[in-house]
Amino acid sequence: MGLDKIYNLGIIGYGAMASNHRKQLEKGNVRARLKGVFDISEERMIAAKKEGYIAYPSKESLLADPDIDIVLVATTNDSHKELAVDALRAGKHVMCEKPVTVTCAELVEIMQTARECGRVFTVDQNRRFNKDFISMWRAIDKGLVGTPYVIESRVEGSRGMPSGWRTAKAQGGGMLYDWGVHLIDQIMYMRDERVVNVFCKTYSINYPEVDDNFRLTMTFESGLTAHIEISTNSFIKHDRFYVLGTEGTMVVNEWDGTGRVVRKLADEDRWSAEIKHVKAGPTKTMAPRDPSTVEEIILEEPSDVVDNLDPVYEQFIAAIEGEELLITPESALRVMKVIEAAFESAKNQVAVATYI
Amino acid sequence: MGLDKIYNLGIIGYGAMASNHRKQLEKGNVRARLKGVFDISEERMIAAKKEGYIAYPSKESLLADPDIDIVLVATTNDSHKELAVDALRAGKHVMCEKPVTVTCAELVEIMQTARECGRVFTVDQNRRFNKDFISMWRAIDKGLVGTPYVIESRVEGSRGMPSGWRTAKAQGGGMLYDWGVHLIDQIMYMRDERVVNVFCKTYSINYPEVDDNFRLTMTFESGLTAHIEISTNSFIKHDRFYVLGTEGTMVVNEWDGTGRVVRKLADEDRWSAEIKHVKAGPTKTMAPRDPSTVEEIILEEPSDVVDNLDPVYEQFIAAIEGEELLITPESALRVMKVIEAAFESAKNQVAVATYI
Repeated sequence: MGLDKIYNLGIIGYGAMASNHRKQLEKGNVRARLKGVFDISEERMIAAKKEGYIAYPSKESLLADPDIDIVLVATTNDSHKELAVDALRAGKHVMCEKPVTVTCAELVEIMQTARECGRVFTVDQNRRFNKDFISMWRAIDKGLVGTPYVIESRVEGSRGMPSGWRTAKAQGGGMLYDWGVHLIDQIMYMRDERVVNVFCKTYSINYPEVDDNFRLTMTFESGLTAHIEISTNSFIKHDRFYVLGTEGTMVVNEWDGTGRVVRKLADEDRWSAEIKHVKAGPTKTMAPRDPSTVEEIILEEPSDVVDNLDPVYEQFIAAIEGEELLITPESALRVMKVIEAAFESAKNQVAVATYI
Repeated sequence: MGLDKIYNLGIIGYGAMASNHRKQLEKGNVRARLKGVFDISEERMIAAKKEGYIAYPSKESLLADPDIDIVLVATTNDSHKELAVDALRAGKHVMCEKPVTVTCAELVEIMQTARECGRVFTVDQNRRFNKDFISMWRAIDKGLVGTPYVIESRVEGSRGMPSGWRTAKAQGGGMLYDWGVHLIDQIMYMRDERVVNVFCKTYSINYPEVDDNFRLTMTFESGLTAHIEISTNSFIKHDRFYVLGTEGTMVVNEWDGTGRVVRKLADEDRWSAEIKHVKAGPTKTMAPRDPSTVEEIILEEPSDVVDNLDPVYEQFIAAIEGEELLITPESALRVMKVIEAAFESAKNQVAVATYI
């Protein structure tokens, strides 16, 4: 084992997300290459063969191949646990698609198995490396808005949900598991503090079995509020991120991470004219501010952020080779606990006190 | 008493909001005219005299003037109840500035007094007649977005709070009472259904005693969610209203009520290409929609809406003359109950089950 070792990957579940891994690995940026796949769909097995990969006749035969070092589990969410445990017991290091599991208990079983087997287990939380998220985080760390007290994080679309299992409750469908897990993970990764309260509203607008929209309020120990929202039925979007800080406000655009901060240069002599007359009548609080008392800072696209799956593989391989894992199952477990609290909140219309 | 009767108004508390009433009444649009005022501030009494009005030497002398038909109470929020009760007992019809009181119990006492005295009591919830609100409401009633399931209503500024008593807890300061009462009242006025759940987060960013920012989630019996937010420390605004409906999405601009609706013309053949490749990688749900499957409807400024205090006086005078009151104390009491639940929610970090 050395710095030039290439790790052979087997994929169980060769659907849309697995194809994305294949395409990225074919670029050869990381020391992992796809060797073969197993899927219950004959059609997908044929496709894999055409693409030049082994189509293992069974899960067992894939796991029995001693050449396979690492396994990607990319099946429906309800089957991750069983497959991850099988792969770990077969001596493989395992990466699992998100959401890692559909319950905390399942994840804990995987974590125990990984420890027993001395293997590395990680999760494809690739959106920790998204440009928009990193751009927002860096601006906060630079102090551009002072102390943040509200972070709004939204992903919105109008095309509904994918057909198939993602609309089925039994297989772990719905938007909390699908996109929510990314947005929750991002904020928890960024903040080194506990989540003390979870309030969530879920909606089933076009898909009766699952949450196809949700609005989640997470409160951190410091008092910071994170508003996380996914909509699959939104025809006009908000900004990707909106951050209120003590000294200024930030918006960040989706994907490329461009954006802007407006912040105060000086406290305005607020009430020299106590009331300002605006269109709807007199107001003290909401009158426009003197523009000379604020500055605007443009946020550029963070060009050093690659925004693909490479960093996920890099941290996985580094951990196999003895370094500290970045996307730990412990961090995934915290996210799963928030999702469980969110479902409880939505079902019972309560705010759930947590210490996560 | 006839259609040409002009009602004489006395104002108790001649501050900023009272001046606004004076200016509007001086236009002569409604059958009420200011006769005189009482204020504990000598300076304001001098100003009233200069403006040509009687400066009554005491509250009692104002209330004892048989020429005064109606009294406007426009003092600090904590003193509304006592003054309203006194004015009703003196035989006057009473309009109170918002928030009507700082507790539900105080308002109930006023309501009982008004019934006993056979006088009309109303509240200056003038923002029921704002262009932006009416524009949003009419678009919903026209069915432009289908069934609404989320209504976001925000008023945001960066100039902090007015100096003086509005930052003092004891006098009923803070943004739930100051602006929140308007935004909550609007949505409850529009929706003929119960509020069943209240969740609220309050912030004291620049004013330690009171909520200078808040985020409130009201859930109606139908499942409709209203997100109500006031910020006094926001340097980049959201749209005034943002509405998610089953068939489309609406944004409305502040004050003039212009805006737009984007809604679906047809369900897109969503997954003909299951995955679309966008900047940040492949996604099914959040890929851009085919523009030919939606239409945009522009919302014009509702030019028939006057957006001033006239309708508040008109409904008050109509009720004095026997018609049904529009801004009833009962409706104000429902709003106060939501505000009390909001304070309880924020203090204890719970979602409060209600039936308001």
